[in-house]
Amino acid sequence: MKKPIGIFDSGIGGLTVVKQLMHLLPNEQLIYFGDTARIPYGTKSKRLIERYAVEDAKFLLQYDIKALVVACNTASSLAMDVLLNSLDVPVIGVVIPGAEAAVKLTCNNKIGVIGTIATINSKSYTLQIQKRLSEAQVFGQACPLLVPLVEEGWLDDEVTILTLKKYLPEMIKEQVDTLILGCTHYPLLEKTIQKIMGDHVRLIDSGKETAKAVKQVLIENNLINRSDKPGPDKFFVSDIPMKFEEIGSRFLGKTLDNVERVDFERFLVKLEPGRMNNLRSNIEV
Amino acid sequence: MKKPIGIFDSGIGGLTVVKQLMHLLPNEQLIYFGDTARIPYGTKSKRLIERYAVEDAKFLLQYDIKALVVACNTASSLAMDVLLNSLDVPVIGVVIPGAEAAVKLTCNNKIGVIGTIATINSKSYTLQIQKRLSEAQVFGQACPLLVPLVEEGWLDDEVTILTLKKYLPEMIKEQVDTLILGCTHYPLLEKTIQKIMGDHVRLIDSGKETAKAVKQVLIENNLINRSDKPGPDKFFVSDIPMKFEEIGSRFLGKTLDNVERVDFERFLVKLEPGRMNNLRSNIEV
Repeated sequence: MKKPIGIFDSGIGGLTVVKQLMHLLPNEQLIYFGDTARIPYGTKSKRLIERYAVEDAKFLLQYDIKALVVACNTASSLAMDVLLNSLDVPVIGVVIPGAEAAVKLTCNNKIGVIGTIATINSKSYTLQIQKRLSEAQVFGQACPLLVPLVEEGWLDDEVTILTLKKYLPEMIKEQVDTLILGCTHYPLLEKTIQKIMGDHVRLIDSGKETAKAVKQVLIENNLINRSDKPGPDKFFVSDIPMKFEEIGSRFLGKTLDNVERVDFERFLVKLEPGRMNNLRSNIEV
Repeated sequence: MKKPIGIFDSGIGGLTVVKQLMHLLPNEQLIYFGDTARIPYGTKSKRLIERYAVEDAKFLLQYDIKALVVACNTASSLAMDVLLNSLDVPVIGVVIPGAEAAVKLTCNNKIGVIGTIATINSKSYTLQIQKRLSEAQVFGQACPLLVPLVEEGWLDDEVTILTLKKYLPEMIKEQVDTLILGCTHYPLLEKTIQKIMGDHVRLIDSGKETAKAVKQVLIENNLINRSDKPGPDKFFVSDIPMKFEEIGSRFLGKTLDNVERVDFERFLVKLEPGRMNNLRSNIEV
């Protein structure tokens, strides 16, 4: 099927997922939306994250997408229900693929998760891991400074190492053998985190796992594109801030160009209390 | 005059200005709006910051305010023109009071400014300082990690010290004798910054200077309230995120309660290109 895949993130961190999708599904057309006008989501409330996720999905639905990838750990942790209940296309978040990979890899059933405040407080990974491996012990740690450190480009800087040494001691003490990088920014810190955790700990890049899950879902639903790529990938953002191209290229692993800024006003939805679970009626308004 | 004073910030950092206003103008009623749903402003574009500032002002105008305080360095650096051109009430930002204080205090005419990426790139402080003291040399440094460090509560932590030691060397090398804390979050780091810069360097808290400027403007325009405080201060935010009260109380210096979350949808404005300078027509729509 020639229709594109839609992907959204709170900003440009989701480009780490796009990079994996490009690699694994080179014939699929990708439409990316990064909500850079309202980034970050990870410090905000569930109510607000749900609203933003609905609006992001609404924007992508314009492009007649065949599947929606929620390439944001915070939105995947807090807004999957509202998206799954409202959309006709398959919706794939990053949490379940990450949790499944951790369950497969752990030997001692001790799994760590690092992420934003909202992701960790939601206990989304704990829930998905224990659903699959009830005896698993899951240790969550919110690491709010890692996103700004990555955006500053201090990937293996002494400040970053010291910050990680303050966030990770519980993981080390509890001897987790598997650590989920529960934020799309964190794969850029993979080497530094590996050094601190030690080589015996397996790091899971949720983005990489998600790309595999997307491929599987497309195959199962007979949605995969078996002919040439139908058109170029498209990148939309709600703001083009300072250093945007520099940071974006760092995430994508190649030059990020042809990015279009959209006025998000046109896809803001009016949500009445109690109607959060009905995206369709909002889209029709 | 019994009307209230309106104050807005991108989040709750502006409470450091509120604290100074409460101290200096105890009889004035204050209406505060913190745009926590869209924080931070400092990493975003001028176009977007202008839009957000207009929307924040629109929200406060509902309360028939007699003056507007832009308690956000980023909005004061990038959106003062659009606000000044559109409002009938006096508008006081934090940049001019901070710049004036620096010009008065410097002996060697070497002034440093630290702030968000947007504030520093705008060169707003440089412009206002050199307008008043043409021979001044101004050294700006964007410090994007300081806001998340303050919000994490790591005020005199070794990570914060190390981060400041990476941001401040140029200021030290150039021997600035005056340093403007050009972000409402930074007064919480005052002691740590003073330690690194040395006791001979004078730090300027723009918030404190702004409170003095507000008093002056009220006196000059015969707007000061000469009777009892007309009503309790009010605090509105566009989102109530995790750790909100803890962080808010840290800024205000006392318990932050009676905060109301507002649906900002109702004060979003439709801005057509080229009409950014006409807030009034947007408010009337």
